[in-house]
Amino acid sequence: MKNQIDVNAVLAGDRRALARFLTAIENETASGRQTLDAVFKRTGQAHIIGVTGSPGAGKSSLVNQLVKYFRQADPSKKIAIIAVDPSSPFTGGALLGDRVRMRDLSGDEGIFIRSMATRGALGGLARTTSAMAEALDAAGFEMIFIETVGAGQSEVDIVRLAHTTIVVEAPGMGDDIQASKAGILEIADILVVNKADQPMAENAVRTLKAMLELGHPIVQSAAERLHHRALAFEAVEVTSDIHQNSEAESWQVPVLTTISTEGVGIQETAEKILEHGVALKQRGEWKKREAARLQEALHDLLIQTFLEKWQRESSSDFVQAVIRDMLNRVHSPHQALQILIKGQNK
Amino acid sequence: MKNQIDVNAVLAGDRRALARFLTAIENETASGRQTLDAVFKRTGQAHIIGVTGSPGAGKSSLVNQLVKYFRQADPSKKIAIIAVDPSSPFTGGALLGDRVRMRDLSGDEGIFIRSMATRGALGGLARTTSAMAEALDAAGFEMIFIETVGAGQSEVDIVRLAHTTIVVEAPGMGDDIQASKAGILEIADILVVNKADQPMAENAVRTLKAMLELGHPIVQSAAERLHHRALAFEAVEVTSDIHQNSEAESWQVPVLTTISTEGVGIQETAEKILEHGVALKQRGEWKKREAARLQEALHDLLIQTFLEKWQRESSSDFVQAVIRDMLNRVHSPHQALQILIKGQNK
Repeated sequence: MKNQIDVNAVLAGDRRALARFLTAIENETASGRQTLDAVFKRTGQAHIIGVTGSPGAGKSSLVNQLVKYFRQADPSKKIAIIAVDPSSPFTGGALLGDRVRMRDLSGDEGIFIRSMATRGALGGLARTTSAMAEALDAAGFEMIFIETVGAGQSEVDIVRLAHTTIVVEAPGMGDDIQASKAGILEIADILVVNKADQPMAENAVRTLKAMLELGHPIVQSAAERLHHRALAFEAVEVTSDIHQNSEAESWQVPVLTTISTEGVGIQETAEKILEHGVALKQRGEWKKREAARLQEALHDLLIQTFLEKWQRESSSDFVQAVIRDMLNRVHSPHQALQILIKGQNK
Repeated sequence: MKNQIDVNAVLAGDRRALARFLTAIENETASGRQTLDAVFKRTGQAHIIGVTGSPGAGKSSLVNQLVKYFRQADPSKKIAIIAVDPSSPFTGGALLGDRVRMRDLSGDEGIFIRSMATRGALGGLARTTSAMAEALDAAGFEMIFIETVGAGQSEVDIVRLAHTTIVVEAPGMGDDIQASKAGILEIADILVVNKADQPMAENAVRTLKAMLELGHPIVQSAAERLHHRALAFEAVEVTSDIHQNSEAESWQVPVLTTISTEGVGIQETAEKILEHGVALKQRGEWKKREAARLQEALHDLLIQTFLEKWQRESSSDFVQAVIRDMLNRVHSPHQALQILIKGQNK
């Protein structure tokens, strides 16, 4: 078949087969799903690194420099980049200057760059990104960078599938740290203040360190959200205390400074990433994060399936009448739910 | 009972009864739900105004000034503020200076301010915020401002329950418009460039106007997301084309400038808000937005109920074994789903 994906070519790292596979994932086709199933046994090897932070913080330049550094340090290491940030130069949404800068990487056969055309993602962005990371993992990419603009829960969702999460800040507009206010500080394994040559950089570092010590309140911690989302599987204890306890005690979140456009601080950041990967494996945390990600994937699939089933069963006059009554404020959404449940059980 | 909520007192606008009601909603107690059901018929009157934008854009000062303006223009008009932004001075997360500024409003009996202790929100933030808005609506508040930090999908979810959405920008850090990059530009009914006395303000206005003309690509449009989320009710046609078609043609999104700390541009913004409310009602769009919100509420309740049911039914050895196999990569999440569905149908 024309749209058939060659599983063996994907596993062998063939770039065209891989690109086709990723497109199939993005479009949620049956052949994409089947290929994911087929390569699943080969996944779980890659170090997934989430890079998030406010627009303008310089995430893309940082990723660019880090990838170059890792490739130079070990030319046998295959590295992939998934850019979910619609403003990322990888995605094409950025200013021309940025995009030109990114060309650095494009000639290197050991690097694979994939941007998410986010508009086209049929399922949740997080789900698609997770599946793409799996595909790249199966294709032998040892490091996978996921770049996303940080602030909301969907970004947190995306980043949370990473083993190592880097939150990038730029010296502030005004006197505030951006990302931390929006609630992504607590998911960071490594904090980077980029553009460290700007006047307020020292201030930003100081503020971040103070926040780390204080434990700044956030929108909702990753662990809490996971607990919430993984409701259906509460009993499987491997997923408990992800991103918390064990780690909070033993991994000291570093605050690094970089000037990524000039390569300053890149080596230190790269070393911290590797160090964090080793630390995760030593403490069994690596496996826990993998488990959490898989359980979330299953959880999402369950909900999707439920909704599809419900829609098929309930496009009846009865359901429509219940909804119309709700819209006319005869009964509340909660009361409508009760009526629907009773109706379905008849 | 001690924790009983006095429904009549709530409907009469009693502040203590209302505060207790809101706490019950936040804690998702049975009495909160019952009271919501009881007051539901009395809802649907308030003009809900979402205010979102990047941290530091000056959302709180703007809301502060707008509320003061509306109160002065019509002292009989009761106004409520729900602050979901954890960095908002209403919430207490902000710098001392901001918080002091907010005291302006605290002596006024016609104003009710509620901040979401977001950490404590058991359900989704959007669900809780929506229920709180209903409670305030029932209690006779004619305008309800919801302030939330913008960028992610959860913020979009929260803001989308509003009739009128204001996106606040501050003249940029660097050369970029913040919120638009993160994907909230397209949900705006009114765009405000605050801090208009700053050097780059004109530039920001120009950029926003250009983006409006071009139709800047966003993470996922409100309408697309609604379509996705309201899957279960696709057939109820009143919810179609919310936030799109009819509106895109007839409401011209204005780009206003304010210096909210000095009260500049407040009247113009206030008038645009009222104008938008009138326009919505004239075109039947008001009712459509209400309908969309109610359907989403029902949709969320359905999923919640499903998950609870699933958890009860499936904490079996069978399910645990399926999940363990998935974690050991014997089968993929998608394959696990198939096994679970077959198992449940037996």
